[in-house]
Amino acid sequence: MKVAIIGIGLIGGSIAKDLRSSGFAKSIIGVEANPIHGEVALEKGLVNELMSLDNAIESSDILILSTPVEVSKLLLPQILDSIGNKLVIDVCSTKKSITSLVEKHINRGQYVAAHPMSGTEYSGPMAAVDGLFINKTNIICEKEKSKDDVLKLALSLFDTLQMKTSFMESDEHDVHAANVSHLSHISSFALALSVLEIEKENPEDIKIMAAGGFRSTVRLAKSDARTWEDILLDNSVNVLTALNVYEKKLKKFKEALITQDKNKLNLLIQESNKIGPIVDAIAKSAEEK
Amino acid sequence: MKVAIIGIGLIGGSIAKDLRSSGFAKSIIGVEANPIHGEVALEKGLVNELMSLDNAIESSDILILSTPVEVSKLLLPQILDSIGNKLVIDVCSTKKSITSLVEKHINRGQYVAAHPMSGTEYSGPMAAVDGLFINKTNIICEKEKSKDDVLKLALSLFDTLQMKTSFMESDEHDVHAANVSHLSHISSFALALSVLEIEKENPEDIKIMAAGGFRSTVRLAKSDARTWEDILLDNSVNVLTALNVYEKKLKKFKEALITQDKNKLNLLIQESNKIGPIVDAIAKSAEEK
Repeated sequence: MKVAIIGIGLIGGSIAKDLRSSGFAKSIIGVEANPIHGEVALEKGLVNELMSLDNAIESSDILILSTPVEVSKLLLPQILDSIGNKLVIDVCSTKKSITSLVEKHINRGQYVAAHPMSGTEYSGPMAAVDGLFINKTNIICEKEKSKDDVLKLALSLFDTLQMKTSFMESDEHDVHAANVSHLSHISSFALALSVLEIEKENPEDIKIMAAGGFRSTVRLAKSDARTWEDILLDNSVNVLTALNVYEKKLKKFKEALITQDKNKLNLLIQESNKIGPIVDAIAKSAEEK
Repeated sequence: MKVAIIGIGLIGGSIAKDLRSSGFAKSIIGVEANPIHGEVALEKGLVNELMSLDNAIESSDILILSTPVEVSKLLLPQILDSIGNKLVIDVCSTKKSITSLVEKHINRGQYVAAHPMSGTEYSGPMAAVDGLFINKTNIICEKEKSKDDVLKLALSLFDTLQMKTSFMESDEHDVHAANVSHLSHISSFALALSVLEIEKENPEDIKIMAAGGFRSTVRLAKSDARTWEDILLDNSVNVLTALNVYEKKLKKFKEALITQDKNKLNLLIQESNKIGPIVDAIAKSAEEK
């Protein structure tokens, strides 16, 4: 099987690694707009060769679109125009706008809308790692719009990556993604900005004072701006709804601090502790082989 | 050396483990208000025996006060009243109010105000672990108010825990702690509360959608309510200042999303990325042996 990966970054590059090492892909074609990333992808052996998009469509059996959301929205209709009976999968972190865009496309059946939920705070082909997706969740949206054999091939690809696939509607996916993933990113970006601003006279003191807790909470603030501007804007309605709830919760902490209400503060923290068993269950399931 | 630990939780219990395994303490006396925690501490071998506070002061060479801030503020003056020429160290996460409280105490010189900056999101003696403090930062405040030999003994204790000690004034400590550590906790508590509220109809969907990023950002929301209500209230002025900056940063994200300002969003994320090298330097230093 020849697989073309359009956008060889953290996700595209890590998919390339696993598809090749597993034998699923005999050869990987890379399509990459950034010449430096293309070179790294070749040097790291993530791809066998680089091609133009047109040649990649021509030469491959499966296309994986792993570019920022706005680029994917631009390329997907073009790819579908000349897809023939091949499979194209997008792996964007938002699903409603991209699926709506090609809803009526004559070749919609050749397309599978996926969101393999794994990543790190790093980006680019240099960040690609083996086994990034093992035991992680993959969401496939609007599966009934993909042809049966096309969906089956996509599932076998995600099985090869050792992912657990769940099915959802696109709008449902985007609401949950805003609440769980996108809100976390904004809370982390804002935390980084706050600490950098407050401690701007003494950045060295951040190093002295920051223990593991701070590192963990602010980790996502290292995420790639190009990728995340697209995700947040594309899902802005749902993200803004989540952000409003977040602001209200922060206000409750402020009120408890201003009024020195020990009991209220205790109850707020105890209530937030309920995330513990949920998070522990996720961690356990991610470790399961 | 006989060391009495008042409050055998995550911090007190972990200190007990390392002081004993290193041979620094020949024996550890536990003082514990919670009878279940006392029993666990004995069973886990964290302490050799349990005693009342008065007997512990009588029987030990060094006292370590590792109770919640408000309890420590209650006990420290009592301990200093009958400390003789022994050493007492408090390990509270806030330092201004407790040091002010005993500023004029006749035995102030026997006291060292410390903040060993390490921990996990778990609490109680069952959470005590070996080597919790290795290569972590310890802050000692107002060192000139501790007698030289008393300070020296405290430093040898923190050296035994393999900590890197820095010196600061108490108010300076509390400002930095609010910005870096306490704000992280509130951002994480509020994130947990938001996700729990928004997803209350479908808590199972949190498990499906939450990847490593969410787990990392929300980890501190598991922190103990009893411990954190005291820390946040005791440091509320500095925490509120930090929280106001945090709210302003969140507002910038909201504005960029509402106006669909791609460029502004990109700049905000790029600016927040600057925390990356700082956090990486901390991680590297924490790993160094």
